[in-house]
Amino acid sequence: MLAELVAVGTELLLGEVVDSNTAWLAGQLANRGVDVYWSQRVGDNLGRATAAIRQALQRSDLVITVGGLGPTEDDLTREAIAAALDETPAVDPALEEGLRGWFERRGARMPEMNVKQARLSPSATSLPNALGTAPGWLVRRGQRMLVALPGPPREMERMWTAEALPRLGLPKATLFRRTYKTFGIGESSVAERLGALLSAATPSVATYARADGVQVRVAAKGTSMDDAARAAEPAMRAVEDALRDVIWGVDDDRMAEVARRRLLERGATLSTMESLTGGLLGAALTSVPGISDVYRGGGISYAVDLKALFGVPPEVLERHGAVSAETAEAMARAAAAHFKSDYALSTTGVAGPSDLEGRPAGTVFIGLHGPQGTESERLDLSNRTRDGVRERTVVGALMLLLRRLPGL
Amino acid sequence: MLAELVAVGTELLLGEVVDSNTAWLAGQLANRGVDVYWSQRVGDNLGRATAAIRQALQRSDLVITVGGLGPTEDDLTREAIAAALDETPAVDPALEEGLRGWFERRGARMPEMNVKQARLSPSATSLPNALGTAPGWLVRRGQRMLVALPGPPREMERMWTAEALPRLGLPKATLFRRTYKTFGIGESSVAERLGALLSAATPSVATYARADGVQVRVAAKGTSMDDAARAAEPAMRAVEDALRDVIWGVDDDRMAEVARRRLLERGATLSTMESLTGGLLGAALTSVPGISDVYRGGGISYAVDLKALFGVPPEVLERHGAVSAETAEAMARAAAAHFKSDYALSTTGVAGPSDLEGRPAGTVFIGLHGPQGTESERLDLSNRTRDGVRERTVVGALMLLLRRLPGL
Repeated sequence: MLAELVAVGTELLLGEVVDSNTAWLAGQLANRGVDVYWSQRVGDNLGRATAAIRQALQRSDLVITVGGLGPTEDDLTREAIAAALDETPAVDPALEEGLRGWFERRGARMPEMNVKQARLSPSATSLPNALGTAPGWLVRRGQRMLVALPGPPREMERMWTAEALPRLGLPKATLFRRTYKTFGIGESSVAERLGALLSAATPSVATYARADGVQVRVAAKGTSMDDAARAAEPAMRAVEDALRDVIWGVDDDRMAEVARRRLLERGATLSTMESLTGGLLGAALTSVPGISDVYRGGGISYAVDLKALFGVPPEVLERHGAVSAETAEAMARAAAAHFKSDYALSTTGVAGPSDLEGRPAGTVFIGLHGPQGTESERLDLSNRTRDGVRERTVVGALMLLLRRLPGL
Repeated sequence: MLAELVAVGTELLLGEVVDSNTAWLAGQLANRGVDVYWSQRVGDNLGRATAAIRQALQRSDLVITVGGLGPTEDDLTREAIAAALDETPAVDPALEEGLRGWFERRGARMPEMNVKQARLSPSATSLPNALGTAPGWLVRRGQRMLVALPGPPREMERMWTAEALPRLGLPKATLFRRTYKTFGIGESSVAERLGALLSAATPSVATYARADGVQVRVAAKGTSMDDAARAAEPAMRAVEDALRDVIWGVDDDRMAEVARRRLLERGATLSTMESLTGGLLGAALTSVPGISDVYRGGGISYAVDLKALFGVPPEVLERHGAVSAETAEAMARAAAAHFKSDYALSTTGVAGPSDLEGRPAGTVFIGLHGPQGTESERLDLSNRTRDGVRERTVVGALMLLLRRLPGL
């Protein structure tokens, strides 16, 4: 089965929104072994949206549109689908009643423009929207199917999972995928280590450069998930053998999650003291469910006197400055003592865009304290934006901790 | 002039990567008044990539491809462009020398597969890549132009700005845009207030629902930027009049940035104490350059005893629990005292997926302390993911502060 995605919205073509919806849908389809060969974006223009949907219906078995189901005049996906099907949509009384009820339950009067969202093309059935006012559409035309989903990600994901998927009867998952995550090695060095593995068609092995390191994906199809996993097995072993020293996680592993696991294995706790990253390291850690088993919290020592409040010796700050290896190490030591943890991570540096204390933007020091002692690492991130410097520092800090805590 | 974007990469069709590159490029083109009608994504498949590029060259004046310029076997954008042009690429000796030099300067030997990146189609000139090994291509074919850019965002943005743009001779900026950001009002209520404004073709007025509130965009074209701004003026005034009470910022304003400005106007400082958000609020604040003028830092009180360490009275925690309005207010008061700031924000709640202290996931309390007193707000975010709860809480906290600090 071949699927095609059509995202509708002028904001996508003006660069005002990054289209994450079709990436999410593509992942859902890939997990079920449904191939996506094309993914289009068109603006809120009836002629071009209609042409895009018509082209998609000609070459793909399943067409999924996202967006353009709102109540305002520039929401015209319903009209475009109907035009591509040579049909005329009309207001569905039951849908209209449902919409009025939705507003009533919220103690509001329905704006009249929302009636538009109750329109339905003759060959379409509606898909309920549990989280908003825009119903979706499901159209069957011979062997072809079309699904229209709303643009807000929560509404789209919920409608796809709860309403569209059960009605579509897609094949069960037959694509097995395993992603290996590495750090500290470049993409072409990874490719050299993998050699001929990268040319095999099945199982396929591919490399991707990511913000948190190079990733290697092994994929194989099979008549069942078990069958596909068996087919991938030899390639997985070969990848693991070739990259054992640089792999830190697999699949959806996040560094903070792996850090949690490794701290938990040791019955150890962690705290943080952040200047440069201003809470971003704590945020990365606390995005992991269950992190409270190992993470105690910490301090955001943005003003210099807060470093002292959290126990950094003033003489270290005076002698070496806030942006120095010595201060990073003193911050990590102080955090472990002040916040009562076995391990502590610290960050200090110049996020930019301006210099600080004579250090150029992008100068970063990460500190790590633990039972084995204190260390620090200097990163030179001068080519990056302010946010880029901060994000890369969080990855560097977590990696410093993971290197200290090898998997048991 | 009409431009079309073609992103190449199977990872985009597998949902493993969100394609932010073409959104960035679309924004760059929109700012210059270049229309983008189509934006396609295709996989690493020579036939389909060639067909996509050929279709784009037929209907658009400027075609920009992104990605697929790497050294590995699945990087085949160069081959697809050459095939679409009916040409045969060959290794360019100067490019090959440049590549070998790039590795030499880094004390490394060039992997032989990288030679592929020195290939050039006869009608293409190469675009230098200051940040990586993949040179870009610039092709002119009669009135049509094609630019091939690498996939890593930093390399792509740099090459577009420094190398492609100066060679393309695009028209000067002629599209004026102003985005108004609102909070606490739904999209159809905004649309009702704006009424007929939304139907005008020029200046155009459109609404978008975003994580940090509904946005209203006014856009107008003109023969010059001044001319376009003048054309937008009446619609801007009308939008401002209709939404004055709910607008918190314009264009690229971020809430944290507006908060910085309003604190600075008052010569006031801010600190934070975060449980639920674990540093995400501090991270949002410190992503703003110059925030150190007003933000002193704060505490991540993930473990309960850290709340006490930062000055929250243990009896409040005992009587009301960690997730309560009383604790949120006590946290804000304690933060202002402990971290010595005029204002303080606090967050506490249940991020999920599990319940806590009998409170369901999504129960959130935000506290605010300032010279006028202490208050708290309860949010019910039970329909959201863990990350969704945390992100919405940060927006809610900043909005609580902005309401307390109206623009002067």
